[in-house]
Amino acid sequence: MNYAIIGVGGIGGYYGGLLAKANKNVQFLLHSDYEFVKQNGLQIDSKNGDFHLDNLNVFNNVKNMNPADVIIVCVKTTNNHLLKSFLPHLVKNDSLVVLIQNGLGLESDLQKEFPDINIVGGMAFICTQKIGEGHIRHLDYGKLTLGLHTPKAKDLFDSLTNDLIDAGLEIEIAPDLQSARWRKLVWNIAYNGTTVVLNTDTKQLMDNASTRQLVTDLMIEVMNGANACGIQYPIDETFIQQMLNMTENMAVYAPSMKLDFDHKREMEIERIYSRPITEAKKAGYEMKKTATIEQQLKFINSHY
Amino acid sequence: MNYAIIGVGGIGGYYGGLLAKANKNVQFLLHSDYEFVKQNGLQIDSKNGDFHLDNLNVFNNVKNMNPADVIIVCVKTTNNHLLKSFLPHLVKNDSLVVLIQNGLGLESDLQKEFPDINIVGGMAFICTQKIGEGHIRHLDYGKLTLGLHTPKAKDLFDSLTNDLIDAGLEIEIAPDLQSARWRKLVWNIAYNGTTVVLNTDTKQLMDNASTRQLVTDLMIEVMNGANACGIQYPIDETFIQQMLNMTENMAVYAPSMKLDFDHKREMEIERIYSRPITEAKKAGYEMKKTATIEQQLKFINSHY
Repeated sequence: MNYAIIGVGGIGGYYGGLLAKANKNVQFLLHSDYEFVKQNGLQIDSKNGDFHLDNLNVFNNVKNMNPADVIIVCVKTTNNHLLKSFLPHLVKNDSLVVLIQNGLGLESDLQKEFPDINIVGGMAFICTQKIGEGHIRHLDYGKLTLGLHTPKAKDLFDSLTNDLIDAGLEIEIAPDLQSARWRKLVWNIAYNGTTVVLNTDTKQLMDNASTRQLVTDLMIEVMNGANACGIQYPIDETFIQQMLNMTENMAVYAPSMKLDFDHKREMEIERIYSRPITEAKKAGYEMKKTATIEQQLKFINSHY
Repeated sequence: MNYAIIGVGGIGGYYGGLLAKANKNVQFLLHSDYEFVKQNGLQIDSKNGDFHLDNLNVFNNVKNMNPADVIIVCVKTTNNHLLKSFLPHLVKNDSLVVLIQNGLGLESDLQKEFPDINIVGGMAFICTQKIGEGHIRHLDYGKLTLGLHTPKAKDLFDSLTNDLIDAGLEIEIAPDLQSARWRKLVWNIAYNGTTVVLNTDTKQLMDNASTRQLVTDLMIEVMNGANACGIQYPIDETFIQQMLNMTENMAVYAPSMKLDFDHKREMEIERIYSRPITEAKKAGYEMKKTATIEQQLKFINSHY
């Protein structure tokens, strides 16, 4: 199987780097770091051991790439409009497109544009970021949860997970993708926007009684929204308690949206906030506290 | 009738100043500006005409003051705990205490502490602020809405309103104080906290589609909360539209809570947010968007 990695930031650099390190055939599509990585390779500082990769197959133009069996999309959802022009150059019959992203409706929207491709949803439970040109720092965690969106691709999906496990990754197979996507939103909706609006971090939110209650309230709204949407594996309060405990035991942490905000990049409001709010509303549940954060984020996003 | 003004900021300086200018007998209780005003008097720059007042009856210790017929309280509600020690020096039989403040539960809490005094609630619809020692700037508006809390004081209340009208003030008598207090909260809840959390002003909130919707949503919550509490004169959507139109036609404006935030003063979260949320909840209605803002404000207030 050969691979194409779209986007080489914290996620794409780390997961793609591990595949390349395991001698898989990997093409990397880069943007701003192309020249640097072509000259100097990719440096990954990981809590599981640092490594350096030279002579990678790097590209700065998708037209020069070869079709791949597996295309792993690691850009922000705010760039998903690019897939419309990228994928025709990369897919062949039975290619698998893996969206390692956060939020709702990603797979169904892409399947509408490309009815024949096979899609897998991926959720990275990882603290990793790009700290310089061609330089990734992996701080903590690393589990990748995968769920099949297009049922006919079951065999290819199994080959992919085997390769990723070979590469040293911890892989979890979600028995139902929508249930897994909503579960990930429990944490993302609670912390991503709140750290941005209050310009703070997870630790300060947990140390203050009011905001600790606010993140709890937001998690409960996500649970209620998800369950109203009829996900196959409903979320219960035990899961919320687990998320709160996990966050309390984490180091001081800036969620991905807070990093986007700090670097004045567009925030993933649409997929992480607006889409879940809309889906829940259609199912008869109003996520009012979540909608307050969404409205505040849209204001902030337009005032950079 | 003789008067005591507690707190000589934008509100107390302007309204108290007008009473003194009209040759009413007025004692002023000052804090930080006492020495300056004793030496230099009070300067009021008003859109209705500037004026200066010398030889005022100023005090920096309530124990040196004489009991008054009318005690007008113009401090922030965050200082209302001081009234417990102040009022015994100032009230006599049939004294009237006027609370020109924002928020809910002010009169009932005070009446519990002082069962025999007469209480009037006041709401200032005014843009005024202290811009220096003994220096008040009155920018716009000025109407004072008064509502009687203690029914037995009807005659004294009428004398007070006559004096205030004599002094050149626009006075509105609220037929029901609770209805008037909730009406004022429609604007205060929508704009006070939102300008603080997003560090902005009323104009920017109105110019952005998301925050325009947010302030509208907050106003609707206040309307629903008030009506759930069974106020005598229910609020309807026409009133909300009036508040939105008024704000759109105002100059760029920082609400009082935003000024408190900018000057790192304690914010009036308890009276403007927490109490209304609690009252509405008791009556069966959850003000969820308002509660989100409240939780964020409490975090901000503890992180100065």
